[in-house]
Amino acid sequence: MGLAIAWRLATDGFGVTVIERGETGQEASWAAAGMLVPDCEFEETTFFSSACRQSLRMYPAFVEALEAESGSRIDFRRFGTLYPAFDNRDQKNLEARLCRQRQEGVAVHSLTLKEVRRLEPNLTSKVQMALYYPENNQVENRDVVKALRVAAERVGAEIRPHTEALGVLYDTECVRGVETATGTVGADIVINATGSWSRYLSGLPGVCSPPVRPVRGQMLALSVVGDPPFRHTIYSSKAYLVPRTSGRLLVGATVEEAGFKNHVTATGALRLLRDAIEVAPALRDFPIESMWAGLRPATPDGWPVIGPTPLKGLYLATGHYRNGILMAPLTAAWMAEMLTGGEVPPAARPFLLERFHASAPPA
Amino acid sequence: MGLAIAWRLATDGFGVTVIERGETGQEASWAAAGMLVPDCEFEETTFFSSACRQSLRMYPAFVEALEAESGSRIDFRRFGTLYPAFDNRDQKNLEARLCRQRQEGVAVHSLTLKEVRRLEPNLTSKVQMALYYPENNQVENRDVVKALRVAAERVGAEIRPHTEALGVLYDTECVRGVETATGTVGADIVINATGSWSRYLSGLPGVCSPPVRPVRGQMLALSVVGDPPFRHTIYSSKAYLVPRTSGRLLVGATVEEAGFKNHVTATGALRLLRDAIEVAPALRDFPIESMWAGLRPATPDGWPVIGPTPLKGLYLATGHYRNGILMAPLTAAWMAEMLTGGEVPPAARPFLLERFHASAPPA
Repeated sequence: MGLAIAWRLATDGFGVTVIERGETGQEASWAAAGMLVPDCEFEETTFFSSACRQSLRMYPAFVEALEAESGSRIDFRRFGTLYPAFDNRDQKNLEARLCRQRQEGVAVHSLTLKEVRRLEPNLTSKVQMALYYPENNQVENRDVVKALRVAAERVGAEIRPHTEALGVLYDTECVRGVETATGTVGADIVINATGSWSRYLSGLPGVCSPPVRPVRGQMLALSVVGDPPFRHTIYSSKAYLVPRTSGRLLVGATVEEAGFKNHVTATGALRLLRDAIEVAPALRDFPIESMWAGLRPATPDGWPVIGPTPLKGLYLATGHYRNGILMAPLTAAWMAEMLTGGEVPPAARPFLLERFHASAPPA
Repeated sequence: MGLAIAWRLATDGFGVTVIERGETGQEASWAAAGMLVPDCEFEETTFFSSACRQSLRMYPAFVEALEAESGSRIDFRRFGTLYPAFDNRDQKNLEARLCRQRQEGVAVHSLTLKEVRRLEPNLTSKVQMALYYPENNQVENRDVVKALRVAAERVGAEIRPHTEALGVLYDTECVRGVETATGTVGADIVINATGSWSRYLSGLPGVCSPPVRPVRGQMLALSVVGDPPFRHTIYSSKAYLVPRTSGRLLVGATVEEAGFKNHVTATGALRLLRDAIEVAPALRDFPIESMWAGLRPATPDGWPVIGPTPLKGLYLATGHYRNGILMAPLTAAWMAEMLTGGEVPPAARPFLLERFHASAPPA
């Protein structure tokens, strides 16, 4: 999120410094699967699902510009996503979902068993039908992160890796900069995009602190040997499967309240492997390439926190939970609008911090 | 096996060259768990189980000499091994085992549920009783391999890593050396200790070729956080658990016919994790430190192939299957006896290659 905003703001002429604790993009954006699947993630239309769809529509141009500016390739696969049903209950849910989403104009098709088998013969024989979302896709998030860094630097952003932000500096009027372990960085505008760690910048008034907590996700990657077993992204009530062009097949993800314990556990790995083999028995003998865990920044209502705080010059872009990669283009665009025009775009209003700190209405 | 023999023969005054495809000790001896548990592995007394017990008795002196000669520490834990029963069938088997092994003078004790709970409170609540083998232990095989290399070099053995042995050179009389990818190494005695690859040295008469095939074993290590959950080695009908002093807890192992495919698979990892959690539910949230696979060199009868071949000067020390680490001291001692005295020690006779190539007895 920080790099996407940095690239955008530097392009717009701002002087930008990215303060990064370790290497850039090592946390949630590295651990993610890069699913761009708002129509699978959300059944109801809300301000957030609409925002996610809007950001999804920005992705082709975003990736194209990013490839051009960074000079690197991004694995952005646009074969659509299948959401299969494995039992009657799944099927009933998907049929109701199809009905509702069609009324709302979502691009979704129902596929018969025969069609699913033809499209993805390696799905379990238990599959009954599937929904097909032609516009829901996936991107290699690690490619995105690496390209963002290059692109941001090329348009003049300064990246300071291995520099821990300790706190925000401010006076009675306004933000003055960031205190780091190796000195202060002066700035009139500070954007807190520190993900799961967003509430831990010290010294801030409580009303500027976003209620973000980490939610662990464990992931694994299998190595594809021979023909790729899947072409589409597979979303399901069990594991999801994300086939990369490179041959890695990602399996995700657990959703766990484990504080900042960011590691793969015996049970987490067990569950992913069991689900993956249930969804696709053909994966049984595939080599495990790697396993990892990441911390999703989550808020109490599941929506991100974007925009100004009560402290002048201090902004937030955090709490994107399972949709940080997806929401990066739109969040960056919104931040640019806010900083250039001074106004919060109407579509971004539902994501202001103030929703958590509103006083009770007068009786 | 090669390094143990090299150390021993160089100590005895032989000029020794170790020809190693990669780095020393990267295959089965690296992948192993270092279980020294012949009384758990074998129920009946055979020539092989007796040899394993004899080698086990050599271990304390072997480790002591190896530490002294290499100047490095070896994690050799001597807390004994528990073999718990998790259901009535397990218990019946273990009681019969106890009866038979006691008659044979094996050091084995039966522990009540209460005693097991006290010794290892983190075993599953399904545990009913256990056998305790005070003399069955475990060693950090990677320590052994590293120390053997240093010790062998200190007594004058030459180690040639990254040198692939392609074939054995010989004339009508005798072995003349080894052909490698980077030249020939002259020698009057060649010992084939190439484990799973033993039958692939080219150009040899078939009667010199040991019928060894690879049997894959997958393993995983959990990281112990806080107090060690186990003190003893745990052997069972499901996974075995091997607690290292460093804090790694090994879980092993699958037994699979998979040719030379030496990788961790989805199902293999699933089985290990499921078994580990069944044996010790407390391990659920332990971090996974690493997973790996190795190829055990197996023969049709499960016994190793040790000693001379029909080709003068060509010896074998291979096919040790699940007991290579355990059998290293005795195999090295036997090889030294054979080469020094020219005689095969009586206890080693059952492991000669000729058992596979004997002609049918005359009718």
